[in-house]
Amino acid sequence: MTPVAANTKEAELVRSIASNFTRHPLQVNGLMEADAEIIRQPHNANEYLVLKTDGIHEEIKHQLYTDSYLVGWMAVTAPVSDIAAVGATPTGILLSMILPRQHQTGRLTEGINDACNQYGIHVLGGDTSFDNFFSVSATVIGHARHNNVMLRRGMQVGDCLYTTSHLGTGNAYAYSRFFDRSLQITFQPEARLKESQLVAQYATSCTDTSDGLFPALAAMWEVNRMGCSIDIPLQKLLSQESLFVHRNAKLPDWMLLAGPHGEYELLFTIPAGKQQEFERDAKQEGLSPLYIGRIISDEKIQFITGTAGIQCHPAFIADMFHEANEDIPQYFELLKQQHNTWSRKM
Amino acid sequence: MTPVAANTKEAELVRSIASNFTRHPLQVNGLMEADAEIIRQPHNANEYLVLKTDGIHEEIKHQLYTDSYLVGWMAVTAPVSDIAAVGATPTGILLSMILPRQHQTGRLTEGINDACNQYGIHVLGGDTSFDNFFSVSATVIGHARHNNVMLRRGMQVGDCLYTTSHLGTGNAYAYSRFFDRSLQITFQPEARLKESQLVAQYATSCTDTSDGLFPALAAMWEVNRMGCSIDIPLQKLLSQESLFVHRNAKLPDWMLLAGPHGEYELLFTIPAGKQQEFERDAKQEGLSPLYIGRIISDEKIQFITGTAGIQCHPAFIADMFHEANEDIPQYFELLKQQHNTWSRKM
Repeated sequence: MTPVAANTKEAELVRSIASNFTRHPLQVNGLMEADAEIIRQPHNANEYLVLKTDGIHEEIKHQLYTDSYLVGWMAVTAPVSDIAAVGATPTGILLSMILPRQHQTGRLTEGINDACNQYGIHVLGGDTSFDNFFSVSATVIGHARHNNVMLRRGMQVGDCLYTTSHLGTGNAYAYSRFFDRSLQITFQPEARLKESQLVAQYATSCTDTSDGLFPALAAMWEVNRMGCSIDIPLQKLLSQESLFVHRNAKLPDWMLLAGPHGEYELLFTIPAGKQQEFERDAKQEGLSPLYIGRIISDEKIQFITGTAGIQCHPAFIADMFHEANEDIPQYFELLKQQHNTWSRKM
Repeated sequence: MTPVAANTKEAELVRSIASNFTRHPLQVNGLMEADAEIIRQPHNANEYLVLKTDGIHEEIKHQLYTDSYLVGWMAVTAPVSDIAAVGATPTGILLSMILPRQHQTGRLTEGINDACNQYGIHVLGGDTSFDNFFSVSATVIGHARHNNVMLRRGMQVGDCLYTTSHLGTGNAYAYSRFFDRSLQITFQPEARLKESQLVAQYATSCTDTSDGLFPALAAMWEVNRMGCSIDIPLQKLLSQESLFVHRNAKLPDWMLLAGPHGEYELLFTIPAGKQQEFERDAKQEGLSPLYIGRIISDEKIQFITGTAGIQCHPAFIADMFHEANEDIPQYFELLKQQHNTWSRKM
């Protein structure tokens, strides 16, 4: 049913740029093996330096984010979420901003400041240029204990797949922005730093859902070459906001998990033997991780949408955005066509 | 003669953005007090973490850099030069790139790679977006011994002012790009990492001339509120490339030091009592630092252009670029007007 993609399109790009560079001998993670860059310290074997650069550019260009406060909040949250996904603790952030000359920076700095306070970090420095557009990139620096660090790579067949909470809000918000503004979806995700500290004690692999569930699963497949069976109906995975869009806009559940705009939850694997212990500890800390399925050796994703069982290559859904040339209306058409194809076969 | 600027325009902008944020309690440098951000390590009092984000954006926009190789080289060199200016050693770099979709990344990554090899660092990670323009920002991470670190702040009246080498190549190159391409000026500066290690043993303050000499002196004045007397004729300060432009284009010497495009030398102060020892050590290491003058308590810059003595506020020349609204032909007119004003008074 599904063409076997050799790679996700995004991974191809990363590989083509990175192939020109040699890795740092102290870098713990290989290319794409972790959400953030993890560097061994020459004189301190117990602590790793962790770094991540991420930018808010396409979100502004496509008018997904029009409120400068949200841009500021997300410029901090996006890389901090990656720091959380490797089990690290962030320290500070450096900003790189391109601003329109008449841009009022008040709302932007308010969003940055609120997010920094939320995560207990500080702006350490930055660089500002002026042009007739708006773009913010940020580098977060943090640290992790070496026995606490999580990679995307490391899952084993039979591991249990979890998320820190319900998913779909990122795409529900995007749908409301692009196709139906009457839906009024609130979007201001929080990086899962607290959850990450517990997850890191158990997880064999972890990534965040910054691009949505299916792109996160594709990224996991990239470095593990395994698949997964999502054992609960997708509808049970949806957040309040995405359930609302699912019902009101009649959007199939899987589309709300297709990306490319996610909700910054953690997606991680726990060895089956430690499932009970993990769930007990999580409960004690007031967390509600969501069991969603199992890792399988077959390189495919199995899931239940509506009442039908689907299986496809792990990169198949993630690659649809790139196949639509990252054009949003075209992408949405492609998703609908795919849903029709699947529906006919059900 | 010179209006006393309360601040350089650039410092005003930085202050206005930074006023919204609180400093990290472990950050060693105050706002604008150093070329890079210096962070104390909680568990290692001897070693500082050093970070710097810098972007190549205006240089591309104004077509000062049209060769992607140069963009790549400079994207690494600019922040590494700041790392050198605080006496630190760089470890690695994270890239944040916005690329036109059809951009051939070969020359860009070649420039990045050559610069990384030159400085003994590695690309640790990055983030790439696509749009119809080209912009590269980079964050360098490094480390410094705590007794080796240099700030812009710290100079004393009577200190000797030095540069690591002759100046003006940055502006000579800019002049050749904007006003006379027949001049063929080569520009590929090297961050002064080796020099920095010696300088850091003696210097009371240091910055780089990434924006040219006069902007560097303005940045020094910002945090020290002292002036300087440049004791050698400006012409003796000029590099081969800028002497060539000075003679062929009849450009006054001071204009080649006015910025805003510099040559990435270090500008630093040495206590008068240590001048001989410093010069002896420099000679032993095969370095040729250039003595250019003295720090004075008066908040002004004194210099000799042609045969005439000039004095002006330390921020006066640096601010002219902003007064011309960063419009290059307008800026050049302003410089010429100023030269006429000074010439009439000579």
